[in-house]
Amino acid sequence: MLIIGERINSTRPKIQEAIKERNTAHVVKEAIKQLAAGAKYIDVNCAVTTGDELQDMDWVISVIQSEVPEVSICIDSPNYLSLERGLKAYKSKGSLFINSITAEDSRINNVLPLAIKYKTKLVALTMDDSGMPDTAAGRFDIAGRIFDKVKREGFNTNDLYIDALIRPISTEPAQAREFLKSLKMIKSLGNVNTICGLSNVSFGLPDRGLVNSIFLAMAMAEGLDAAIIDPTEKHIASSLAASDALLGDDEYCGRYITAFREGRLI
Amino acid sequence: MLIIGERINSTRPKIQEAIKERNTAHVVKEAIKQLAAGAKYIDVNCAVTTGDELQDMDWVISVIQSEVPEVSICIDSPNYLSLERGLKAYKSKGSLFINSITAEDSRINNVLPLAIKYKTKLVALTMDDSGMPDTAAGRFDIAGRIFDKVKREGFNTNDLYIDALIRPISTEPAQAREFLKSLKMIKSLGNVNTICGLSNVSFGLPDRGLVNSIFLAMAMAEGLDAAIIDPTEKHIASSLAASDALLGDDEYCGRYITAFREGRLI
Repeated sequence: MLIIGERINSTRPKIQEAIKERNTAHVVKEAIKQLAAGAKYIDVNCAVTTGDELQDMDWVISVIQSEVPEVSICIDSPNYLSLERGLKAYKSKGSLFINSITAEDSRINNVLPLAIKYKTKLVALTMDDSGMPDTAAGRFDIAGRIFDKVKREGFNTNDLYIDALIRPISTEPAQAREFLKSLKMIKSLGNVNTICGLSNVSFGLPDRGLVNSIFLAMAMAEGLDAAIIDPTEKHIASSLAASDALLGDDEYCGRYITAFREGRLI
Repeated sequence: MLIIGERINSTRPKIQEAIKERNTAHVVKEAIKQLAAGAKYIDVNCAVTTGDELQDMDWVISVIQSEVPEVSICIDSPNYLSLERGLKAYKSKGSLFINSITAEDSRINNVLPLAIKYKTKLVALTMDDSGMPDTAAGRFDIAGRIFDKVKREGFNTNDLYIDALIRPISTEPAQAREFLKSLKMIKSLGNVNTICGLSNVSFGLPDRGLVNSIFLAMAMAEGLDAAIIDPTEKHIASSLAASDALLGDDEYCGRYITAFREGRLI
Protein backbone atom coordinates (compact mmCIF):
# COMPACT_ATOMS: atom_id res chain seq x y z
CA MET A 1 0.00 0.00 0.00
CA LEU A 2 1.30 3.37 -1.06
CA ILE A 3 0.27 6.01 1.47
CA ILE A 4 -0.17 9.69 0.68
CA GLY A 5 -0.49 11.73 3.89
CA GLU A 6 -3.49 14.05 3.64
CA ARG A 7 -3.04 16.31 6.65
CA ILE A 8 -1.52 19.38 4.92
CA ASN A 9 -4.84 20.44 3.45
CA SER A 10 -6.13 23.96 3.62
CA THR A 11 -9.67 22.78 4.40
CA ARG A 12 -8.30 22.03 7.89
CA PRO A 13 -8.49 25.23 9.98
CA LYS A 14 -5.10 24.76 11.66
CA ILE A 15 -3.36 24.26 8.33
CA GLN A 16 -5.17 27.22 6.80
CA GLU A 17 -3.96 29.35 9.69
CA ALA A 18 -0.40 28.00 9.48
CA ILE A 19 -0.25 28.81 5.76
CA LYS A 20 -1.69 32.28 6.28
CA GLU A 21 0.80 33.04 9.07
CA ARG A 22 3.72 31.40 7.24
CA ASN A 23 4.21 29.12 10.25
CA THR A 24 7.07 26.98 8.92
CA ALA A 25 7.44 24.90 12.10
CA HIS A 26 3.82 23.74 12.04
CA VAL A 27 3.83 22.76 8.36
CA VAL A 28 7.14 20.92 8.64
CA LYS A 29 6.00 19.10 11.78
CA GLU A 30 2.89 17.91 9.96
CA ALA A 31 5.02 16.55 7.12
CA ILE A 32 7.49 14.78 9.41
CA LYS A 33 4.89 13.10 11.57
CA GLN A 34 3.10 11.70 8.53
CA LEU A 35 6.35 10.34 7.09
CA ALA A 36 7.13 8.73 10.44
CA ALA A 37 3.70 7.06 10.34
CA GLY A 38 4.38 5.49 6.96
CA ALA A 39 3.41 8.10 4.36
CA LYS A 40 5.53 7.97 1.19
CA TYR A 41 4.14 11.24 -0.23
CA ILE A 42 2.96 14.41 1.51
CA ASP A 43 -0.17 15.85 -0.08
CA VAL A 44 -0.15 19.65 -0.25
CA ASN A 45 -3.45 21.42 -0.81
CA CYS A 46 -3.72 25.21 -0.60
CA ALA A 47 -6.96 25.66 -2.51
CA VAL A 48 -8.99 27.07 0.38
CA THR A 49 -6.55 29.59 1.77
CA THR A 50 -7.59 33.19 1.98
CA GLY A 51 -4.51 34.39 0.13
CA ASP A 52 -3.07 33.59 -3.27
CA GLU A 53 -3.17 29.84 -3.90
CA LEU A 54 -0.14 29.92 -6.20
CA GLN A 55 2.06 31.76 -3.72
CA ASP A 56 0.85 29.57 -0.90
CA MET A 57 1.61 26.37 -2.86
CA ASP A 58 5.09 27.66 -3.64
CA TRP A 59 5.72 28.53 -0.01
CA VAL A 60 4.48 25.23 1.49
CA ILE A 61 6.46 23.05 -0.92
CA SER A 62 9.56 25.20 -0.46
CA VAL A 63 9.53 25.01 3.32
CA ILE A 64 8.86 21.27 3.44
CA GLN A 65 11.67 20.40 1.04
CA SER A 66 14.08 22.74 2.80
CA GLU A 67 13.57 20.84 6.06
CA VAL A 68 12.94 17.28 4.84
CA PRO A 69 15.61 15.95 2.47
CA GLU A 70 14.29 14.04 -0.56
CA VAL A 71 10.69 14.44 0.48
CA SER A 72 8.13 13.27 -2.08
CA ILE A 73 5.14 15.54 -2.63
CA CYS A 74 1.63 15.13 -3.96
CA ILE A 75 0.60 18.49 -5.39
CA ASP A 76 -3.13 18.80 -4.90
CA SER A 77 -5.28 21.36 -6.67
CA PRO A 78 -8.11 21.55 -9.18
CA ASN A 79 -6.24 24.54 -10.67
CA TYR A 80 -3.55 23.66 -13.22
CA LEU A 81 -1.76 26.97 -12.63
CA SER A 82 -1.37 26.06 -8.98
CA LEU A 83 -0.13 22.58 -9.94
CA GLU A 84 2.42 24.13 -12.29
CA ARG A 85 3.62 26.54 -9.61
CA GLY A 86 4.06 23.61 -7.22
CA LEU A 87 5.98 21.60 -9.81
CA LYS A 88 8.32 24.52 -10.43
CA ALA A 89 8.85 25.05 -6.70
CA TYR A 90 9.84 21.42 -6.17
CA LYS A 91 13.63 20.96 -6.31
CA SER A 92 14.01 17.90 -4.12
CA LYS A 93 15.22 14.43 -5.18
CA GLY A 94 12.06 12.58 -4.16
CA SER A 95 9.23 12.02 -6.57
CA LEU A 96 5.98 13.75 -7.40
CA PHE A 97 2.28 13.08 -7.68
CA ILE A 98 -0.24 15.37 -9.30
CA ASN A 99 -3.68 15.27 -7.67
CA SER A 100 -5.69 15.35 -9.92
CA ILE A 101 -7.23 15.08 -13.35
CA THR A 102 -10.77 14.02 -14.20
CA ALA A 103 -12.32 13.01 -17.52
CA GLU A 104 -13.38 16.63 -18.02
CA ASP A 105 -11.74 17.90 -21.19
CA SER A 106 -10.50 21.19 -19.78
CA ARG A 107 -8.86 19.52 -16.80
CA ILE A 108 -7.22 16.63 -18.64
CA ASN A 109 -5.96 18.90 -21.43
CA ASN A 110 -4.37 21.38 -19.02
CA VAL A 111 -2.92 18.95 -16.49
CA LEU A 112 -1.78 15.91 -18.47
CA PRO A 113 1.01 17.84 -20.27
CA LEU A 114 2.36 18.87 -16.87
CA ALA A 115 2.40 15.25 -15.61
CA ILE A 116 4.25 14.20 -18.77
CA LYS A 117 6.70 17.10 -18.69
CA TYR A 118 7.58 16.69 -15.00
CA LYS A 119 7.39 12.85 -15.05
CA THR A 120 4.94 12.68 -12.15
CA LYS A 121 2.51 10.04 -11.02
CA LEU A 122 -1.06 11.14 -11.58
CA VAL A 123 -4.37 10.77 -9.69
CA ALA A 124 -7.44 10.59 -11.96
CA LEU A 125 -10.93 10.97 -10.51
CA THR A 126 -13.80 9.11 -12.15
CA MET A 127 -15.92 12.13 -12.93
CA ASP A 128 -16.68 13.83 -16.21
CA ASP A 129 -18.66 16.79 -17.53
CA SER A 130 -21.90 15.13 -16.45
CA GLY A 131 -20.76 14.52 -12.87
CA MET A 132 -19.97 11.48 -10.71
CA PRO A 133 -21.47 8.10 -11.59
CA ASP A 134 -23.53 6.08 -9.09
CA THR A 135 -22.50 2.62 -10.20
CA ALA A 136 -19.37 0.52 -10.55
CA ALA A 137 -20.10 0.31 -14.30
CA GLY A 138 -20.28 4.10 -14.57
CA ARG A 139 -16.97 4.48 -12.73
CA PHE A 140 -15.38 1.82 -14.95
CA ASP A 141 -16.59 3.56 -18.08
CA ILE A 142 -14.98 6.86 -17.09
CA ALA A 143 -11.80 5.13 -15.89
CA GLY A 144 -11.54 3.44 -19.29
CA ARG A 145 -11.85 6.74 -21.14
CA ILE A 146 -9.16 8.33 -18.96
CA PHE A 147 -6.89 5.29 -19.34
CA ASP A 148 -7.19 5.34 -23.13
CA LYS A 149 -6.70 9.10 -23.38
CA VAL A 150 -3.57 9.34 -21.22
CA LYS A 151 -2.05 6.29 -22.90
CA ARG A 152 -2.69 7.82 -26.33
CA GLU A 153 -0.94 10.99 -25.20
CA GLY A 154 2.14 9.03 -24.19
CA PHE A 155 1.67 8.89 -20.40
CA ASN A 156 2.89 5.66 -18.77
CA THR A 157 -0.21 4.08 -17.23
CA ASN A 158 1.95 2.43 -14.55
CA ASP A 159 1.99 5.94 -13.07
CA LEU A 160 -1.80 6.42 -13.31
CA TYR A 161 -3.80 6.08 -10.08
CA ILE A 162 -7.56 5.97 -10.59
CA ASP A 163 -9.75 7.20 -7.72
CA ALA A 164 -13.28 5.81 -8.15
CA LEU A 165 -14.64 8.50 -5.78
CA ILE A 166 -16.35 7.04 -2.76
CA ARG A 167 -19.53 8.82 -1.61
CA PRO A 168 -21.23 8.96 1.82
CA ILE A 169 -23.01 5.78 2.90
CA SER A 170 -25.15 7.79 5.33
CA THR A 171 -27.23 9.07 2.42
CA GLU A 172 -26.37 6.52 -0.29
CA PRO A 173 -26.14 3.04 1.27
CA ALA A 174 -25.05 1.25 -1.92
CA GLN A 175 -22.04 3.46 -2.62
CA ALA A 176 -19.37 1.52 -0.71
CA ARG A 177 -20.29 -1.73 -2.48
CA GLU A 178 -20.26 0.00 -5.87
CA PHE A 179 -16.86 1.49 -5.15
CA LEU A 180 -15.43 -1.85 -4.00
CA LYS A 181 -16.84 -3.60 -7.04
CA SER A 182 -15.23 -1.04 -9.34
CA LEU A 183 -11.70 -1.75 -8.06
CA LYS A 184 -11.21 -5.10 -9.84
CA MET A 185 -12.98 -3.75 -12.93
CA ILE A 186 -10.55 -0.84 -13.14
CA LYS A 187 -7.53 -3.13 -12.66
CA SER A 188 -8.78 -5.16 -15.63
CA LEU A 189 -7.94 -2.17 -17.89
CA GLY A 190 -4.26 -3.09 -17.79
CA ASN A 191 -1.21 -1.69 -16.02
CA VAL A 192 -2.97 0.85 -13.86
CA ASN A 193 -3.34 1.52 -10.14
CA THR A 194 -6.28 2.30 -7.88
CA ILE A 195 -6.28 4.94 -5.17
CA CYS A 196 -8.81 6.25 -2.72
CA GLY A 197 -9.33 9.38 -0.67
CA LEU A 198 -11.58 7.61 1.77
CA SER A 199 -12.93 10.06 4.29
CA ASN A 200 -16.05 10.95 2.24
CA VAL A 201 -17.42 7.48 2.95
CA SER A 202 -18.21 8.38 6.57
CA PHE A 203 -19.61 11.89 6.00
CA GLY A 204 -22.54 12.51 8.35
CA LEU A 205 -21.72 9.61 10.70
CA PRO A 206 -20.25 9.56 14.21
CA ASP A 207 -16.89 7.87 14.92
CA ARG A 208 -15.78 8.51 11.34
CA GLY A 209 -12.29 7.10 11.86
CA LEU A 210 -13.82 3.69 12.57
CA VAL A 211 -15.90 3.65 9.38
CA ASN A 212 -12.98 4.94 7.31
CA SER A 213 -10.63 2.32 8.73
CA ILE A 214 -13.02 -0.60 8.11
CA PHE A 215 -13.63 0.64 4.58
CA LEU A 216 -9.87 0.85 4.04
CA ALA A 217 -9.48 -2.81 5.09
CA MET A 218 -12.21 -3.89 2.66
CA ALA A 219 -10.67 -1.89 -0.18
CA MET A 220 -7.20 -3.29 0.56
CA ALA A 221 -8.62 -6.82 0.42
CA GLU A 222 -10.09 -5.94 -3.00
CA GLY A 223 -6.67 -4.84 -4.22
CA LEU A 224 -6.52 -1.08 -3.60
CA ASP A 225 -2.98 0.10 -4.43
CA ALA A 226 -2.79 3.47 -2.70
CA ALA A 227 -4.71 5.69 -0.31
CA ILE A 228 -4.81 9.37 0.54
CA ILE A 229 -5.25 9.18 4.30
CA ASP A 230 -4.11 10.44 7.67
CA PRO A 231 -1.67 7.69 8.75
CA THR A 232 -1.32 9.28 12.20
CA GLU A 233 -4.99 8.65 13.04
CA LYS A 234 -5.13 5.62 15.35
CA HIS A 235 -8.04 3.84 13.66
CA ILE A 236 -6.36 4.19 10.25
CA ALA A 237 -2.93 3.15 11.55
CA SER A 238 -4.49 0.07 13.19
CA SER A 239 -6.40 -0.96 10.08
CA LEU A 240 -3.34 -0.46 7.87
CA ALA A 241 -1.06 -2.53 10.12
CA ALA A 242 -3.59 -5.35 10.53
CA SER A 243 -4.56 -5.33 6.85
CA ASP A 244 -0.96 -5.49 5.66
CA ALA A 245 -0.36 -8.42 8.01
CA LEU A 246 -3.54 -10.21 6.91
CA LEU A 247 -2.84 -9.72 3.22
CA GLY A 248 0.68 -11.13 3.48
CA ASP A 249 2.35 -7.74 2.91
CA ASP A 250 4.07 -7.76 6.32
CA GLU A 251 5.74 -11.12 6.49
CA TYR A 252 5.64 -12.72 9.91
CA CYS A 253 3.81 -9.57 11.03
CA GLY A 254 6.99 -7.69 11.96
CA ARG A 255 5.64 -4.18 11.30
CA TYR A 256 2.36 -5.05 13.02
CA ILE A 257 4.16 -6.20 16.17
CA THR A 258 6.35 -3.07 16.13
CA ALA A 259 3.27 -0.84 15.78
CA PHE A 260 1.73 -2.63 18.76
CA ARG A 261 4.87 -2.22 20.89
CA GLU A 262 5.04 1.47 20.04
CA GLY A 263 1.44 1.97 21.17
CA ARG A 264 0.20 2.94 17.71
CA LEU A 265 -2.68 0.42 17.62
CA ILE A 266 -6.18 0.72 19.02
CA MET B 1 -24.61 -11.52 8.80
CA LEU B 2 -25.76 -14.35 11.00
CA ILE B 3 -23.91 -14.25 14.31
CA ILE B 4 -23.28 -17.28 16.50
CA GLY B 5 -22.03 -16.22 19.94
CA GLU B 6 -18.94 -18.23 20.86
CA ARG B 7 -18.47 -17.39 24.53
CA ILE B 8 -20.00 -20.52 26.11
CA ASN B 9 -17.03 -22.66 25.26
CA SER B 10 -15.37 -24.98 27.74
CA THR B 11 -11.89 -24.00 26.54
CA ARG B 12 -12.49 -20.73 28.43
CA PRO B 13 -11.51 -21.27 32.09
CA LYS B 14 -14.47 -19.33 33.54
CA ILE B 15 -16.96 -21.33 31.50
CA GLN B 16 -15.25 -24.59 32.38
CA GLU B 17 -15.55 -23.66 36.05
CA ALA B 18 -19.18 -22.56 35.70
CA ILE B 19 -20.09 -25.88 34.05
CA LYS B 20 -18.24 -27.89 36.68
CA GLU B 21 -19.92 -26.01 39.53
CA ARG B 22 -23.34 -26.01 37.81
CA ASN B 23 -23.35 -22.20 38.05
CA THR B 24 -26.64 -21.50 36.27
CA ALA B 25 -26.48 -17.73 36.74
CA HIS B 26 -23.12 -17.41 35.00
CA VAL B 27 -24.05 -19.54 32.02
CA VAL B 28 -27.39 -17.78 31.52
CA LYS B 29 -25.76 -14.36 31.85
CA GLU B 30 -23.27 -15.29 29.12
CA ALA B 31 -26.13 -16.31 26.83
CA ILE B 32 -28.19 -13.17 27.46
CA LYS B 33 -25.35 -10.74 26.93
CA GLN B 34 -24.44 -12.32 23.60
CA LEU B 35 -28.07 -12.17 22.42
CA ALA B 36 -28.22 -8.52 23.45
CA ALA B 37 -25.09 -7.88 21.36
CA GLY B 38 -26.68 -9.34 18.24
CA ALA B 39 -26.06 -13.09 18.39
CA LYS B 40 -28.86 -15.16 16.82
CA TYR B 41 -27.50 -18.49 18.08
CA ILE B 42 -25.64 -19.38 21.27
CA ASP B 43 -22.81 -21.83 20.68
CA VAL B 44 -22.48 -24.44 23.45
CA ASN B 45 -19.24 -26.37 23.69
CA CYS B 46 -18.55 -28.71 26.62
CA ALA B 47 -15.79 -30.78 25.05
CA VAL B 48 -13.03 -29.72 27.45
CA THR B 49 -14.79 -30.05 30.77
CA THR B 50 -13.38 -32.36 33.39
CA GLY B 51 -16.66 -34.22 33.83
CA ASP B 52 -18.91 -36.09 31.45
CA GLU B 53 -19.34 -34.13 28.20
CA LEU B 54 -22.80 -35.59 27.52
CA GLN B 55 -24.17 -34.70 30.93
CA ASP B 56 -22.58 -31.25 30.75
CA MET B 57 -24.09 -30.59 27.30
CA ASP B 58 -27.51 -31.63 28.58
CA TRP B 59 -27.20 -29.38 31.62
CA VAL B 60 -25.99 -26.25 29.77
CA ILE B 61 -28.68 -26.44 27.10
CA SER B 62 -31.36 -27.16 29.69
CA VAL B 63 -30.50 -24.17 31.89
CA ILE B 64 -30.20 -21.74 28.99
CA GLN B 65 -33.57 -22.69 27.49
CA SER B 66 -35.26 -22.61 30.88
CA GLU B 67 -34.21 -18.97 31.35
CA VAL B 68 -34.23 -17.65 27.76
CA PRO B 69 -37.49 -18.31 25.91
CA GLU B 70 -37.13 -19.47 22.32
CA VAL B 71 -33.34 -19.34 22.41
CA SER B 72 -31.58 -20.78 19.37
CA ILE B 73 -28.58 -22.99 20.08
CA CYS B 74 -25.51 -24.09 18.15
CA ILE B 75 -24.49 -27.47 19.57
CA ASP B 76 -20.74 -27.72 19.27
CA SER B 77 -18.81 -30.95 19.61
CA PRO B 78 -16.60 -33.28 17.59
CA ASN B 79 -18.46 -36.16 19.33
CA TYR B 80 -21.75 -37.18 17.71
CA LEU B 81 -22.99 -38.70 20.96
CA SER B 82 -22.63 -35.31 22.62
CA LEU B 83 -24.41 -33.65 19.69
CA GLU B 84 -27.25 -36.14 19.99
CA ARG B 85 -27.56 -35.56 23.71
CA GLY B 86 -27.75 -31.81 23.10
CA LEU B 87 -30.40 -32.26 20.41
CA LYS B 88 -32.52 -34.35 22.76
CA ALA B 89 -32.12 -31.83 25.58
CA TYR B 90 -33.33 -28.96 23.39
CA LYS B 91 -37.09 -28.38 23.84
CA SER B 92 -37.26 -24.69 22.97
CA LYS B 93 -39.03 -23.10 19.99
CA GLY B 94 -35.94 -21.48 18.48
CA SER B 95 -33.80 -23.23 15.91
CA LEU B 96 -30.66 -25.33 15.98
CA PHE B 97 -27.21 -25.50 14.45
CA ILE B 98 -24.90 -28.49 14.62
CA ASN B 99 -21.22 -27.56 14.76
CA SER B 100 -19.75 -29.52 12.96
CA ILE B 101 -19.07 -32.11 10.32
CA THR B 102 -15.94 -32.44 8.19
CA ALA B 103 -15.32 -34.47 5.04
CA GLU B 104 -14.04 -37.32 7.24
CA ASP B 105 -16.23 -40.37 6.60
CA SER B 106 -16.77 -41.28 10.23
CA ARG B 107 -17.85 -37.77 11.17
CA ILE B 108 -20.15 -37.11 8.23
CA ASN B 109 -21.77 -40.56 8.51
CA ASN B 110 -22.50 -40.15 12.22
CA VAL B 111 -23.58 -36.52 12.28
CA LEU B 112 -25.46 -35.92 9.02
CA PRO B 113 -28.36 -38.22 9.99
CA LEU B 114 -28.79 -36.16 13.18
CA ALA B 115 -28.92 -32.90 11.23
CA ILE B 116 -31.54 -34.39 8.90
CA LYS B 117 -33.61 -35.94 11.71
CA TYR B 118 -33.64 -32.80 13.86
CA LYS B 119 -33.86 -30.38 10.90
CA THR B 120 -30.84 -28.32 12.00
CA LYS B 121 -28.51 -26.03 10.16
CA LEU B 122 -25.05 -27.55 9.83
CA VAL B 123 -21.47 -26.25 9.96
CA ALA B 124 -19.03 -28.16 7.75
CA LEU B 125 -15.28 -27.70 8.13
CA THR B 126 -13.06 -28.04 5.05
CA MET B 127 -10.87 -30.82 6.38
CA ASP B 128 -10.71 -34.48 5.49
CA ASP B 129 -8.79 -37.60 6.46
CA SER B 130 -5.58 -36.06 5.13
CA GLY B 131 -5.91 -32.83 7.13
CA MET B 132 -6.51 -29.15 6.36
CA PRO B 133 -5.61 -27.79 2.92
CA ASP B 134 -3.26 -24.82 2.47
CA THR B 135 -4.86 -23.32 -0.60
CA ALA B 136 -8.21 -21.88 -1.69
CA ALA B 137 -8.38 -24.65 -4.31
CA GLY B 138 -7.86 -27.33 -1.67
CA ARG B 139 -10.61 -25.83 0.50
CA PHE B 140 -12.94 -25.61 -2.50
CA ASP B 141 -12.30 -29.25 -3.40
CA ILE B 142 -13.29 -30.45 0.08
CA ALA B 143 -16.28 -28.08 0.20
CA GLY B 144 -17.48 -29.51 -3.10
CA ARG B 145 -17.26 -33.08 -1.81
CA ILE B 146 -19.21 -32.19 1.34
CA PHE B 147 -21.79 -30.25 -0.68
CA ASP B 148 -22.37 -33.18 -3.05
CA LYS B 149 -22.51 -35.74 -0.26
CA VAL B 150 -25.02 -33.93 1.97
CA LYS B 151 -27.19 -33.06 -1.03
CA ARG B 152 -27.21 -36.71 -2.13
CA GLU B 153 -28.31 -37.72 1.35
CA GLY B 154 -31.26 -35.34 1.19
CA PHE B 155 -29.96 -32.46 3.33
CA ASN B 156 -31.09 -29.00 2.17
CA THR B 157 -27.91 -27.14 1.22
CA ASN B 158 -29.56 -23.82 2.10
CA ASP B 159 -28.89 -24.97 5.68
CA LEU B 160 -25.24 -25.87 5.04
CA TYR B 161 -22.59 -23.44 6.32
CA ILE B 162 -19.07 -24.15 5.08
CA ASP B 163 -16.17 -23.02 7.26
CA ALA B 164 -13.00 -22.82 5.16
CA LEU B 165 -10.86 -22.93 8.33
CA ILE B 166 -8.67 -19.88 8.71
CA ARG B 167 -5.15 -20.49 10.05
CA PRO B 168 -2.70 -18.19 11.87
CA ILE B 169 -1.06 -15.52 9.73
CA SER B 170 1.78 -15.21 12.27
CA THR B 171 3.26 -18.47 10.98
CA GLU B 172 1.54 -18.77 7.57
CA PRO B 173 1.32 -15.31 5.96
CA ALA B 174 -0.65 -16.43 2.89
CA GLN B 175 -3.49 -18.08 4.82
CA ALA B 176 -5.85 -15.09 5.12
CA ARG B 177 -5.69 -14.42 1.38
CA GLU B 178 -6.31 -18.10 0.60
CA PHE B 179 -9.29 -18.15 2.94
CA LEU B 180 -10.76 -14.96 1.45
CA LYS B 181 -10.26 -16.27 -2.08
CA SER B 182 -12.09 -19.50 -1.18
CA LEU B 183 -15.29 -17.69 -0.13
CA LYS B 184 -16.51 -16.82 -3.63
CA MET B 185 -15.37 -20.22 -4.92
CA ILE B 186 -17.47 -22.00 -2.31
CA LYS B 187 -20.51 -19.83 -3.07
CA SER B 188 -20.20 -20.89 -6.70
CA LEU B 189 -21.21 -24.43 -5.65
CA GLY B 190 -24.86 -23.36 -5.46
CA ASN B 191 -27.25 -22.61 -2.61
CA VAL B 192 -24.79 -22.80 0.24
CA ASN B 193 -23.52 -20.47 2.95
CA THR B 194 -20.08 -19.60 4.26
CA ILE B 195 -19.19 -19.26 7.92
CA CYS B 196 -16.03 -18.52 9.86
CA GLY B 197 -14.74 -19.05 13.35
CA LEU B 198 -12.19 -16.31 13.01
CA SER B 199 -10.05 -16.16 16.10
CA ASN B 200 -7.40 -18.61 14.81
CA VAL B 201 -6.27 -15.97 12.31
CA SER B 202 -4.60 -13.91 15.04
CA PHE B 203 -3.01 -16.75 17.02
CA GLY B 204 0.42 -15.70 18.28
CA LEU B 205 -0.13 -11.97 17.71
CA PRO B 206 -0.75 -9.13 20.18
CA ASP B 207 -4.01 -7.13 20.11
CA ARG B 208 -5.84 -10.14 18.64
CA GLY B 209 -9.25 -8.45 18.69
CA LEU B 210 -7.97 -5.86 16.20
CA VAL B 211 -6.68 -8.47 13.73
CA ASN B 212 -9.85 -10.57 14.10
CA SER B 213 -12.06 -7.54 13.52
CA ILE B 214 -10.20 -6.37 10.40
CA PHE B 215 -10.28 -9.90 9.01
CA LEU B 216 -14.02 -10.05 9.70
CA ALA B 217 -14.54 -6.85 7.68
CA MET B 218 -12.58 -8.26 4.76
CA ALA B 219 -14.49 -11.55 4.86
CA MET B 220 -17.83 -9.71 5.04
CA ALA B 221 -16.85 -7.68 1.98
CA GLU B 222 -16.12 -10.99 0.20
CA GLY B 223 -19.61 -12.26 1.04
CA LEU B 224 -19.22 -14.21 4.30
CA ASP B 225 -22.72 -15.21 5.47
CA ALA B 226 -22.16 -16.07 9.13
CA ALA B 227 -19.52 -15.92 11.85
CA ILE B 228 -18.86 -17.68 15.13
CA ILE B 229 -17.59 -14.77 17.20
CA ASP B 230 -17.80 -12.92 20.48
CA PRO B 231 -20.20 -10.07 19.63
CA THR B 232 -19.59 -8.46 23.03
CA GLU B 233 -15.91 -7.80 22.24
CA LYS B 234 -15.55 -4.12 21.35
CA HIS B 235 -13.30 -4.55 18.30
CA ILE B 236 -15.65 -7.16 16.85
CA ALA B 237 -18.79 -5.15 17.65
CA SER B 238 -17.24 -2.08 15.99
CA SER B 239 -16.21 -3.94 12.86
CA LEU B 240 -19.62 -5.61 12.57
CA ALA B 241 -21.52 -2.34 12.91
CA ALA B 242 -19.28 -0.47 10.47
CA SER B 243 -19.16 -3.36 7.99
CA ASP B 244 -22.95 -3.78 7.95
CA ALA B 245 -23.31 -0.04 7.34
CA LEU B 246 -20.67 -0.04 4.58
CA LEU B 247 -22.13 -3.07 2.83
CA GLY B 248 -25.63 -1.60 2.73
CA ASP B 249 -27.03 -4.04 5.32
CA ASP B 250 -27.90 -1.27 7.78
CA GLU B 251 -29.85 1.19 5.73
CA TYR B 252 -29.15 4.81 6.62
CA CYS B 253 -26.80 3.42 9.27
CA GLY B 254 -29.46 3.24 11.99
CA ARG B 255 -27.93 0.33 13.92
CA TYR B 256 -24.45 1.85 13.57
CA ILE B 257 -25.60 5.15 15.06
CA THR B 258 -27.39 3.32 17.89
CA ALA B 259 -24.27 1.30 18.66
CA PHE B 260 -22.28 4.54 18.80
CA ARG B 261 -24.80 6.20 21.13
CA GLU B 262 -24.76 3.18 23.43
CA GLY B 263 -20.96 3.34 23.68
CA ARG B 264 -20.43 -0.03 21.98
CA LEU B 265 -17.94 1.23 19.39
CA ILE B 266 -14.19 1.72 19.66
